[in-house]
Amino acid sequence: MIVEIINIGDELLIGQVINTNAAWMAEQLNLNGFRVHQFTVISDSRVHILQALAEAEARAEIVLISGGIGPTKDDITKHTLCEFFNTRLVFNQEAYCDVEAMFARRGYAVTELNRQQAELPEGCTGLPNALGTARGMWFEKDRQAGGKTIFVSMPGVPFEMKSMMTQQVIPRLKQLYHTPFIYHKTILTQGIGESFLAEQIADWENKLPENIKLAYLPQPGIVRLRLTGMGNGEQILHQQVDAEVIKLESLIAEYIFGYDDETLEAIIGKILKEKNAMLATAESCTGGYLAHLITGVPGSSAWYKGSVVAYSNEVKEKILGVQSESILKFGAVSKQVVTEMAISLQNRFKADYVIATSGIAGPDGGTPEKPVGTTWIAIASPDEVFAMHYLFGDSRDRNIRRTALQALNLLRKKLM
Amino acid sequence: MIVEIINIGDELLIGQVINTNAAWMAEQLNLNGFRVHQFTVISDSRVHILQALAEAEARAEIVLISGGIGPTKDDITKHTLCEFFNTRLVFNQEAYCDVEAMFARRGYAVTELNRQQAELPEGCTGLPNALGTARGMWFEKDRQAGGKTIFVSMPGVPFEMKSMMTQQVIPRLKQLYHTPFIYHKTILTQGIGESFLAEQIADWENKLPENIKLAYLPQPGIVRLRLTGMGNGEQILHQQVDAEVIKLESLIAEYIFGYDDETLEAIIGKILKEKNAMLATAESCTGGYLAHLITGVPGSSAWYKGSVVAYSNEVKEKILGVQSESILKFGAVSKQVVTEMAISLQNRFKADYVIATSGIAGPDGGTPEKPVGTTWIAIASPDEVFAMHYLFGDSRDRNIRRTALQALNLLRKKLM
Repeated sequence: MIVEIINIGDELLIGQVINTNAAWMAEQLNLNGFRVHQFTVISDSRVHILQALAEAEARAEIVLISGGIGPTKDDITKHTLCEFFNTRLVFNQEAYCDVEAMFARRGYAVTELNRQQAELPEGCTGLPNALGTARGMWFEKDRQAGGKTIFVSMPGVPFEMKSMMTQQVIPRLKQLYHTPFIYHKTILTQGIGESFLAEQIADWENKLPENIKLAYLPQPGIVRLRLTGMGNGEQILHQQVDAEVIKLESLIAEYIFGYDDETLEAIIGKILKEKNAMLATAESCTGGYLAHLITGVPGSSAWYKGSVVAYSNEVKEKILGVQSESILKFGAVSKQVVTEMAISLQNRFKADYVIATSGIAGPDGGTPEKPVGTTWIAIASPDEVFAMHYLFGDSRDRNIRRTALQALNLLRKKLM
Repeated sequence: MIVEIINIGDELLIGQVINTNAAWMAEQLNLNGFRVHQFTVISDSRVHILQALAEAEARAEIVLISGGIGPTKDDITKHTLCEFFNTRLVFNQEAYCDVEAMFARRGYAVTELNRQQAELPEGCTGLPNALGTARGMWFEKDRQAGGKTIFVSMPGVPFEMKSMMTQQVIPRLKQLYHTPFIYHKTILTQGIGESFLAEQIADWENKLPENIKLAYLPQPGIVRLRLTGMGNGEQILHQQVDAEVIKLESLIAEYIFGYDDETLEAIIGKILKEKNAMLATAESCTGGYLAHLITGVPGSSAWYKGSVVAYSNEVKEKILGVQSESILKFGAVSKQVVTEMAISLQNRFKADYVIATSGIAGPDGGTPEKPVGTTWIAIASPDEVFAMHYLFGDSRDRNIRRTALQALNLLRKKLM
């Protein structure tokens, strides 16, 4: 069952609105066993809509359309759908009653524009819109090759589209088609680049069964590996994918920190909570980004005491208690200083664990001995303190992000 | 000049990644006088790529492709491009040297996969990738109707694509095509919602000349208003747009904090540097996000001393010097406590200005008297301390962001 998605809207094509609808629709369709073959974003124009519909019909059995309908947009799209399906607009009493009822609930009178919304192409099935006035339209069209192509037109307003997809479109599609089981598992890695990862797992990847696909999804500092299995028996499929995950884990265990939608900061939070231990951070080069990631986890105050962002040597000395001789002798970006930051904050904040960072994020501040990207991270725990040295890249934003993720993963490993 | 954008990537078609690339590319192209006609998102498959290229060629003069190249993705896309352009892969010494140099800077050896990245289709122009190992590829193909279609293949990693578009693709396109003069001016506002703003400027907006368009670009906490003028005379166009900006300023002066690519944190940094004054922050509900925004400005250590992120009352008392009776009597989210945080940090960090925040970001922690979204912000300056109360919304992320932006704008106004 091949599906295509067409999104209509000039606001998408000038980049004013990001097309989140297509991604959401595709995700829901995939979870229900439908494969999406293409997204096409087109303008609110008759010629363009006709062309896109005809092209999609040649490729797909199901064509889902969002956008181009609604009180101020109906005109072109509905007339063009009538032209494409060789039909005409007729007044639909049921649709009118829905609009009237919705307006009555809000205390408004029905306008002429909204009355026109109750006109639907003859021969289509109107789909109720629980959250708006524009009905969805479900068309079935005979294919030249036999069978039917299904076209569904939905509003472009995301919450109206989502409710219509969930309540109307997907249940109807599942009744019509027998879909395979699909099972995704995403493995999250940190501390290794995409190409090095690919080399380490090449043999395993080449031996993957035909029905299991691997995707690399890199982000700054993190590479996600997604396995997607497709098959007929749900249980067998899960076993098959899980067996491949176990093989993969044995190859790159040291880089894996989690699965699916997990984040390093939430994983750490869970472990600290279990241990009944408190964390604090002493940040120089990460400049508060570690604290920002950590406090993004709801309820983090149960296991996080806070941070000192020391952006001047004076704060490093007076608030963090780093010795001024250490800064003079070794420099602020050094094993000595980052270690002192960690130990001192552990005492001052009475924290069980401390992460400390110091580095040259750039663009300025590099020297031949300590180029931009030079970074020290220290982890203090109840039983030891250690510090690690890294050389990241040239980009300030990426250096901050990579330092924070590396530091969180060092702590996670220490906590295990 | 009609442009089409093709984004290649299975991860887009299963909805795991939202296609932000197309919107960004379209926005940049529009800003430079190029109109985007269609986005097409396709899979990493030979047949699909060939079909999409042929279809786009029939409609557009410029076809920009992102995705499908990179150390683990090269295979299909590059071979398919060779097939489409009837050419073959050849080793490119210049591309190889770039990869080698980038790896040498990071202290890595070049892998076989990366060596293969230096193979480019014969006859294309390789475009340097300042931030990655995959070169862009610029092809020119004769049209049946005469003239040429230009195809450009770029990496799908957003920051690599953005740098290549800005540094390579757009300058080359502007050399080849005569585009109308386009002049943009973006007015940045904080502290007022989109619909309230629209009401205040409706009369002015309705009277805008035909060749000047207004776009509302809302983000959490900020609404950008972009005026776009199009015309043939550059100087007249500038005068015309600037005159409208002056009219707009008189309507909403209190909400405007800057123009174009400025940020509140960079504006503040500039003023503090001029005043030779130092800033520090005491953060509770913003949890390090203020520090993160501020330290994102290169060179911010010249005017920013750092932050104390106090995520526990203990840190508020012992490190920030808030009186425990104040917390007991008024609660941590109160005028009294946020004011003490600001004054105390001003003394401890010897800072001229301090921002302090305390609020209930959610989802938990709300009470009937202090619901989620309740926020206090204090500003300490050499001559006074004041605190303001806000009630933001239900979303944790948005509350953190709105508090930080509101706080920065309060400080900016104090500094003026």
